[in-house]
Amino acid sequence: MQEEQELLSKKGFILDVDGVICRGSRPIEGGVEGVRALLEMGKRVVFVSNNSTRSRRMLINRFRSFGLDVSEDMIIVATYATASYLKREFGELDVFTTGEEGLVEELEGMGHRIVDYGKAECLVVASNRNLNYDLMTKALRCCMRVEKYVATNPDRIFPGWDGPIPGTGMIVGALYWMTGRMPDAVVGKPSEIIMREALEKLGCKPEEAVVVGDQIDVDVAAGKKVGCKTVLVLSGVTKKVNVAEKEKAPDLVVDDLSCLFK
Amino acid sequence: MQEEQELLSKKGFILDVDGVICRGSRPIEGGVEGVRALLEMGKRVVFVSNNSTRSRRMLINRFRSFGLDVSEDMIIVATYATASYLKREFGELDVFTTGEEGLVEELEGMGHRIVDYGKAECLVVASNRNLNYDLMTKALRCCMRVEKYVATNPDRIFPGWDGPIPGTGMIVGALYWMTGRMPDAVVGKPSEIIMREALEKLGCKPEEAVVVGDQIDVDVAAGKKVGCKTVLVLSGVTKKVNVAEKEKAPDLVVDDLSCLFK
Repeated sequence: MQEEQELLSKKGFILDVDGVICRGSRPIEGGVEGVRALLEMGKRVVFVSNNSTRSRRMLINRFRSFGLDVSEDMIIVATYATASYLKREFGELDVFTTGEEGLVEELEGMGHRIVDYGKAECLVVASNRNLNYDLMTKALRCCMRVEKYVATNPDRIFPGWDGPIPGTGMIVGALYWMTGRMPDAVVGKPSEIIMREALEKLGCKPEEAVVVGDQIDVDVAAGKKVGCKTVLVLSGVTKKVNVAEKEKAPDLVVDDLSCLFK
Repeated sequence: MQEEQELLSKKGFILDVDGVICRGSRPIEGGVEGVRALLEMGKRVVFVSNNSTRSRRMLINRFRSFGLDVSEDMIIVATYATASYLKREFGELDVFTTGEEGLVEELEGMGHRIVDYGKAECLVVASNRNLNYDLMTKALRCCMRVEKYVATNPDRIFPGWDGPIPGTGMIVGALYWMTGRMPDAVVGKPSEIIMREALEKLGCKPEEAVVVGDQIDVDVAAGKKVGCKTVLVLSGVTKKVNVAEKEKAPDLVVDDLSCLFK
């Protein structure tokens, strides 16, 4: 109880989405309830997702279907964070991307221009459910000639509704195998890039914020990297906790987000 | 001239196809001429190709369009060699494959049965120009559960008519990145598996045979591995020779196959 009290005294909360608030398009009751409780307490909340196919707008619509009304500046998706990172570091770029509409929406919204692989200054790799041989060929050729190369997120496999499905990492791995080249930067968790963006949005120092997620190697690792307190929830892919190395362990483990208040 | 004389005294010739006899669907004049000369001298000839999408029948038709009449037992394609290897080692198997029609034709011709990924005993990875997200998802799931896993060939990139294109190795790399699993066996060059099959077809001991190809790391390496003499031709992807390590160097370098006779 003491740990819960200390965590609830923090100013800001960085919440993972899949496995914390929902599983795909279905809400997690305790997660939605937990978000409401945090907002009622006046906490600052930012949602941080490694999703590489959805824009913030798409996520807001999903949240609305759960009865949660959140604004654009409460959401950081890897799509948006990648567009924002590139703009901040290099200005507006000519980009070739393997990604879907949601990523294109965020890239264009930030002023980047989507171009053919032969004309790009930057390759942005992200998952695509319409991936095919032609797209992989273009990504290969772009990867061999382009100066800048980033990936939205490192996830190799995602849990689909009927079994594992390939993540952005599959394309990163395929390109590495063919060219020997890895991305210059990977934006999504556990990268510091997306976490710094989240802290900035919160207006919090790391020691004033708590990171909540369902994966040790992704969410807890990301939180620890920037110096936040961390909470692991068991409402997502992690079903039991078995952390051999103490320095990787979260500060607290709970069944779902609402348990913070019980 | 002495080296040429010695090589032409050998009984059997193992010839690579792409870069030696043709480039895609276009014949290489010196290559076709060289094959005719070898056959006129009464040499035993076997063609060995890492192609993972064509059956032997398809290759015979292509040779015919070059004015070369060859029989099925003079051709070893990675598709056929994989089907044959599996049959010899394990009998007839229930197979899930990422490959195309040409591979399916050879697998079924050898008595294997093509099944869905959830029911397979063996995963056969090969390049597929109709590759998509759904196929990669099935390959991923198959790779995670199946007992046997082989790849037709290791090639990561091929030279397409307008630039590099992904080879079978792209899928091998993607699966490795997602699952940590590599194939139990890779059949194509430089693997000994396909070379042993070629020597058996020739009815030659390694010291009685010459391997001719256009790639140091593929054809020359394969020939050296089984103890054959090796010839590098410059009519394919290798444009000049720069072999730092002497033990990797071919016994002879010529512009094209016909130069053996000049």
